[in-house]
Amino acid sequence: MVAAKLYGPVQQDLALVEELMASLRQVDYPPLAHMLDIVLSGSGKRLRPALVLLSGTFGDYRLDLLVPLAASVELLHTATLVHDDVIDSADTRRGRPTVNSVFHNSTSVMLGDYMFAHAAELVARTGNIRVIRLFAHTLMVMARGEITQDMSAYDSRQDVQEYLHRIAGKTASLFATACEGGAIVAGEPEEWVLALRDYGYNLGMAFQIVDDILDFTGDEAEMGKPVGSDLMQGTLTLPSLLLLQRYPDDNPVQRFFHERTQEHLQQAVLMVRDSEVLDESYAIARQFSRRALEALDVLPGTEARQTLEYLAEYILERRS
Amino acid sequence: MVAAKLYGPVQQDLALVEELMASLRQVDYPPLAHMLDIVLSGSGKRLRPALVLLSGTFGDYRLDLLVPLAASVELLHTATLVHDDVIDSADTRRGRPTVNSVFHNSTSVMLGDYMFAHAAELVARTGNIRVIRLFAHTLMVMARGEITQDMSAYDSRQDVQEYLHRIAGKTASLFATACEGGAIVAGEPEEWVLALRDYGYNLGMAFQIVDDILDFTGDEAEMGKPVGSDLMQGTLTLPSLLLLQRYPDDNPVQRFFHERTQEHLQQAVLMVRDSEVLDESYAIARQFSRRALEALDVLPGTEARQTLEYLAEYILERRS
Repeated sequence: MVAAKLYGPVQQDLALVEELMASLRQVDYPPLAHMLDIVLSGSGKRLRPALVLLSGTFGDYRLDLLVPLAASVELLHTATLVHDDVIDSADTRRGRPTVNSVFHNSTSVMLGDYMFAHAAELVARTGNIRVIRLFAHTLMVMARGEITQDMSAYDSRQDVQEYLHRIAGKTASLFATACEGGAIVAGEPEEWVLALRDYGYNLGMAFQIVDDILDFTGDEAEMGKPVGSDLMQGTLTLPSLLLLQRYPDDNPVQRFFHERTQEHLQQAVLMVRDSEVLDESYAIARQFSRRALEALDVLPGTEARQTLEYLAEYILERRS
Repeated sequence: MVAAKLYGPVQQDLALVEELMASLRQVDYPPLAHMLDIVLSGSGKRLRPALVLLSGTFGDYRLDLLVPLAASVELLHTATLVHDDVIDSADTRRGRPTVNSVFHNSTSVMLGDYMFAHAAELVARTGNIRVIRLFAHTLMVMARGEITQDMSAYDSRQDVQEYLHRIAGKTASLFATACEGGAIVAGEPEEWVLALRDYGYNLGMAFQIVDDILDFTGDEAEMGKPVGSDLMQGTLTLPSLLLLQRYPDDNPVQRFFHERTQEHLQQAVLMVRDSEVLDESYAIARQFSRRALEALDVLPGTEARQTLEYLAEYILERRS
C-alpha cells in the first residue's frame, strides 16, 4: 500500500471502500468467491476511489453515497482489466503472453460481467440518475477505446493524435468520471463539477502516458509484466509512435511489426530507451499534469485540493 | 419475423423498440457500426421486449419509458450471447466449434461490454432506481449462472436440481426481470408486479427446457447450430441428465465425456432422441408453462393477458 500522505484527508475513509470491496467477495458459491479473491484482493493503489472521495470533499461529503461510488469505480476498472486478459491464443494479431493468465477465457468474461453488474448495483445505490448515466456512458467510451486499440494493432500508420484519442477513452474517461461523479453526488456547483472532471481527465491522460513510458523503462518484477509488452501485442504507444515519426526509415518497430521476432522486439525496446523520445513523452505527460493543476484553480484551497495537486506531481514520478 | 398475432396488442409498438435498437447502430466509428450491424440486425423473435410491453399494459402504459426498457432487455440478452461466443480454443474443456465465430475473442468481449453499457444507459432513461437495481442484480445472477455452467462442464455428477438452478440464473432471471420491470415502470400494484415476475420466471424456465430439447431434436439449419452442441461443449441439459439418471451404467454421454469422439457424441444424441427422456423433458417444461399461466390469475382478463397465456402455449410448440 501507499504512504499515508498520498491521499491526505480521505486516506482513512478509503478503508471503508476497502471494507465494502471485501464484502463483495463474500458470495455463497465457492468458485466465484475464490475468483473474486484473486482479482479484488489486490495491492492496488486505489487511486480512482481516492479521486471520488477527494472530489466529494468540496460539497456535502456523504460517505454513505461516496463510498459505494468509489467502490463502483474501482470495480469497473478491475473488471476491464479482467476482460483485457481474454486472449486470442490462435490469433497472431494479439500474441500476448499467456503466462500471467489465471482463468480460462470464458471464465474471465463471465467474471468480468459479474463485476460490471456489481459496479452498476453500487452506483445505483447513490440513487442519482445523472451519475448512473455518467457511468454507463463511461463504460461505452472505455469499451470503444479498447475496440479502437484492438483494430489498430500492428498498424504503424497511426499518429499521436489517434493515440491520445485512444487513451482518452481507455483511461482518462474513468478518471474524469471518478472526479465528476464524486462532485455530483456531493451536490457541488456546476463550475466545480466541470473543473474536477477536467482535472480527472488530464490526470488520467498523464497517468496513461507515464504507464506507457514505464512499459519501456520499468522493472519487470515491479511492473508485473515483461518490458515492451505493449509492442509485443502490437499496440503503439507514445514512445514508439514518436520513434516511428523521428526515424521513419528502417525502424526496429516497423521491422518487428513485419516480422515478429524476439530480436526485433528487443532492438525496438533498446532504441526507445536510448533515444530522446522518452524525454519528449514525459514532456507531453507533464503538459497534461499542468492542465490538471490549472483546472483546480476555481476550487477553494483546502487540504483536499493540495492532495489533488500533489497527485498530479506524484503520477509523473512514479516508477511502477 | 413472427406472425402478427403472436404479440397481440403490443405487436405494433414493438416497431418502436426495433427503431430504437436500429438507432444504436448509428455510431461514428465504422468498425464498431459494422459489428453492431451484425449482432443487432437479427431476425430475433424479440420475445423479451414483447414481455416488457405486455407487462406494462396493466398499468400506466408509458411508451417513453417502456420502449427504452424493452430495448435494454434485448440488448442485455444479445450482449450475453456475444460474450458466450468467446472461446478457449486451446482448451479442451470447451471444445466449441469456432466455425460460426465472426469476431476475435478480444473484440467480442469489448463489443459485449459496449452493449452492456448501452443497456445500462437505456434502463437509466426510465429514471427508476428500483428498475435499475433490478437490472444490475439480474446481470449478476446471469453471469453467476454462466460461471456455474462453465465450472460444471464435462462433470456427469450433476443432478436435475442443479440444472434447474442453472437455467433459472442463465435464462429465467431475465424473463422475470422483463415482466417485473415493465410492471414497475407502469406503476402497477405490487401484487401484479409479483404475479408478472412469477409468470416471466416460469415462462423462462419452460423456454430454456424446450431450447435444450431442440438442441437434440431441432433442424441444424433452422437452429443455426449443430445438433448436440450442448453436449459437445460439455454442458448437461435436462434430456442428457435424465438419460444419465435412467441408464447410469455404460451411458454414451458418460463415454463421450471420458473420450470425446464424434462417434460417442452421435450415439448419445441418437439415444436421447430414441428414448422416453424427451417426453419427460417436455412434461417438465409443460409444468413450468402451467405455473406461468396460474400466475396470471390475479390479473384482469385483457387482450394482453390472453397474449401472455398464448405465449405460454407457443413456447412449448416452437420448433426453433
